[in-house]
Amino acid sequence: MESSYDLVVIGSGPGGYVAAIRAGQLGLKTAIVEREALGGACLNWGCIPTKALLKNAEIVSYVRRAEEFGLSFDGFRADYSVAMARSRRVVERNTRGVRFLLRKNNVEHIQGTGRLVGSNRVAVEPSQSELGRGSLAGPNRVAVEPEGAVVEAKNVIIATGARPRAVPALPVDGNRIISSRESIVLTDLPSSMVIVGGGAIGVEFAYIYAMYGVEVTIVELLPRLVPNEDEDISTQLERSFRGLGMKVLTGAAVTGVRNRPDGVTVSVEQGGAAQSIDAGMVLVAVGVQPNVEDLGLEGVGVAVDRAGIAVDEFLATSVPGVYAIGDVTGKMPLAHVASAQAVTAVEHIMGMEPQPMEYVNMPRTTYCNPQIASFGLTEAQAREQGYDVNVGVFNAMANGKALAMGETEGMVKLVVDSRYGELLGGHMIGPEVTELLGELSMTRMLEGTTLELGWTVHPHPSLSEMLKEAALSAQGRAVHS
Amino acid sequence: MESSYDLVVIGSGPGGYVAAIRAGQLGLKTAIVEREALGGACLNWGCIPTKALLKNAEIVSYVRRAEEFGLSFDGFRADYSVAMARSRRVVERNTRGVRFLLRKNNVEHIQGTGRLVGSNRVAVEPSQSELGRGSLAGPNRVAVEPEGAVVEAKNVIIATGARPRAVPALPVDGNRIISSRESIVLTDLPSSMVIVGGGAIGVEFAYIYAMYGVEVTIVELLPRLVPNEDEDISTQLERSFRGLGMKVLTGAAVTGVRNRPDGVTVSVEQGGAAQSIDAGMVLVAVGVQPNVEDLGLEGVGVAVDRAGIAVDEFLATSVPGVYAIGDVTGKMPLAHVASAQAVTAVEHIMGMEPQPMEYVNMPRTTYCNPQIASFGLTEAQAREQGYDVNVGVFNAMANGKALAMGETEGMVKLVVDSRYGELLGGHMIGPEVTELLGELSMTRMLEGTTLELGWTVHPHPSLSEMLKEAALSAQGRAVHS
Repeated sequence: MESSYDLVVIGSGPGGYVAAIRAGQLGLKTAIVEREALGGACLNWGCIPTKALLKNAEIVSYVRRAEEFGLSFDGFRADYSVAMARSRRVVERNTRGVRFLLRKNNVEHIQGTGRLVGSNRVAVEPSQSELGRGSLAGPNRVAVEPEGAVVEAKNVIIATGARPRAVPALPVDGNRIISSRESIVLTDLPSSMVIVGGGAIGVEFAYIYAMYGVEVTIVELLPRLVPNEDEDISTQLERSFRGLGMKVLTGAAVTGVRNRPDGVTVSVEQGGAAQSIDAGMVLVAVGVQPNVEDLGLEGVGVAVDRAGIAVDEFLATSVPGVYAIGDVTGKMPLAHVASAQAVTAVEHIMGMEPQPMEYVNMPRTTYCNPQIASFGLTEAQAREQGYDVNVGVFNAMANGKALAMGETEGMVKLVVDSRYGELLGGHMIGPEVTELLGELSMTRMLEGTTLELGWTVHPHPSLSEMLKEAALSAQGRAVHS
Repeated sequence: MESSYDLVVIGSGPGGYVAAIRAGQLGLKTAIVEREALGGACLNWGCIPTKALLKNAEIVSYVRRAEEFGLSFDGFRADYSVAMARSRRVVERNTRGVRFLLRKNNVEHIQGTGRLVGSNRVAVEPSQSELGRGSLAGPNRVAVEPEGAVVEAKNVIIATGARPRAVPALPVDGNRIISSRESIVLTDLPSSMVIVGGGAIGVEFAYIYAMYGVEVTIVELLPRLVPNEDEDISTQLERSFRGLGMKVLTGAAVTGVRNRPDGVTVSVEQGGAAQSIDAGMVLVAVGVQPNVEDLGLEGVGVAVDRAGIAVDEFLATSVPGVYAIGDVTGKMPLAHVASAQAVTAVEHIMGMEPQPMEYVNMPRTTYCNPQIASFGLTEAQAREQGYDVNVGVFNAMANGKALAMGETEGMVKLVVDSRYGELLGGHMIGPEVTELLGELSMTRMLEGTTLELGWTVHPHPSLSEMLKEAALSAQGRAVHS
């Protein structure tokens, strides 16, 4: 096979496939090269299946509160393997969707491992799995010769993503010591689990497992859970998680792990004191590292920095015609950031003058319960940067819808520039807050202030009224608090 | 008693109490006169308790799908009386909150029935219930003499709300034939119910009862459910409701009702054919009528029109110093509209030049499942008004979060002016859409277009991505459809 394309995208996560679709829309002859499953980590082992599991966990949480809701039954059993199977069906529907969209936009899907062999040439080697299956072609899929092939590409976008970060003290064995990749397809839960890392991935799994009856201990090196969030958010999450029966150790380092016949013993040092925790399993969830290896970057001269592939605000690398997007750039390992980068990169290739990437106001969401959603500066960051800060806070306890839902743990906190009421940051924890973030993002995008947010009529009763009330509170005129 | 106030508010629903609080914030000596329960119909018999019942119904709906979520048990029973009791506790917490806020803002609460006896004088007669209880004063509550009293008021705001509209063919007896007022405190559900009226109130109760196993038939006079919504929304709701086992008769008139020993027989005419429906109860939910009686309006010269008390865009009535807000104005019987009118009226009294009321873009929400949320013009209305309309649609079936939640019935439909991409209307049905409406309202308020809505990065996966995709779709460039 020797083909030539306007654009070859390597990797098919939300960055890669959106880039390919946008390029297809704009009439570029486009191919996407994927070595594993279409949709990448997000669709197959990350965002999507965890959300399905979290929905199950939420439902189990209601059943745990059965008496409050007037439900009664005998012999309740929540089968985690069914939850897991459901999450895989959801994955399957999503990846089918991506396959359909690629075809619809005339994107060729090449199964194999892509590697740069020149700034305009990509070698594709068949994935081991493909060779094993013996099937190299399919609808809208270019067959790759067993010995591989090289395709020409006017432009290349690298979107190979990231993988769970390894920790020397915690060698993942896929059995007792696992990463999120194994965690997402676990069918049998242990009775206890230590989760190392209290960031988004760690706390999402912690919530799922705790709801399914696993005794969960979270160990976080920094002084608080979700350490990138505003401090008030961390405080509320820790309170909620303790209320659900989880143990939370912050400012605590894992110094080692030892196998026992029926599990592991994890050694932890906290505040100078050592302790051992016995558990059935350890989940290592300390972030991700970019997949920069075996891409031929060095040969072609694509610069890599500490975070990942180095890119400018239009996602161009150091080599003309070669772009990188998504987790492999190490900018912000979030699917929607990758998709945004994808559109910017493709439109830059087309000379369409897209908006340059800017990361501080990107939405950040964590889907445990209570949910977390934020953008922009924390209160501490805003003060550090010298802003004269007003803070507007509204507590879910005083919101009619939250009361009616029986979910009153949470708050909205707006960090506001006192001069004109500009939103510097928004920090939310509580029911469905991931769906409220769009409103703050639009307000910021359209240069709105707390004035307009406070003016705008919000449906009653709704959780979104908390945004309005927080905005009024920042002006010292909240109605409901 | 003879007291004088800057402002006397008659009625303490979300219009009345927000007016009193805002007046208190601005330093007005304020009293609020309430003949029944603080918080009015919304808090006590409307918005708030229904949302609590709807949450219970939602949880029951999950249990009905137990197998899909891997849950198993024996002898499941959902006790509706516990759901009802929970809803009353939620009401109690909300009204306590209102009581606290009134006190905090130095508003005096006068228990009794208020009546204008001059444009600056309000007579307060003790409510029958108060006399019966023998307690006329309390913390922050002015005692009313048993024979009544008159208070002076520089300004009066009438916020007496509305009550369920009566239908001659269906005389409410509070037993077999009930209105929403009785429905909200029902403890024993019948095995079958006819709900007359397919608007917001009717479909919310229909969903609640259907989830609790009641055989529900909805009879709507107009050709479709939720007839004020965009046609596509009605179509989806009807499909969903039929899927849940409800019977839906549209374009159907109730011609009579007859008591039987074990229930009622409702006579219905649909398309020229008559039919009889046997049921345990009938719920009459055909809208509300304003409480304009016994207020002394005629004596003082306050004009009343077909809808209710006539007001201008600042809520002033025909008599200087007398304002009216909320359902009694018949503008739009929604709590958040009443609250918005309250702030406008009080700020107008203060000479603060508030924004005049404008109703077409007010949020409209219905909390059955799937939820409904909308603002502005329907597609048909926009075309009728001569706009060159673009429509942007995104289906929940293609949204990752909806798939993960297992709730894929729904859509977002944007009605857009083709010239600049201005949002003329937004129409949504599906999971949690009531929380997505704020984003569209802010976009509209800040004069944003589909361009900015399509640009703005939304968290992945989230239901709010549907808004972005619908905006892109209106521009002919959706990524995920």
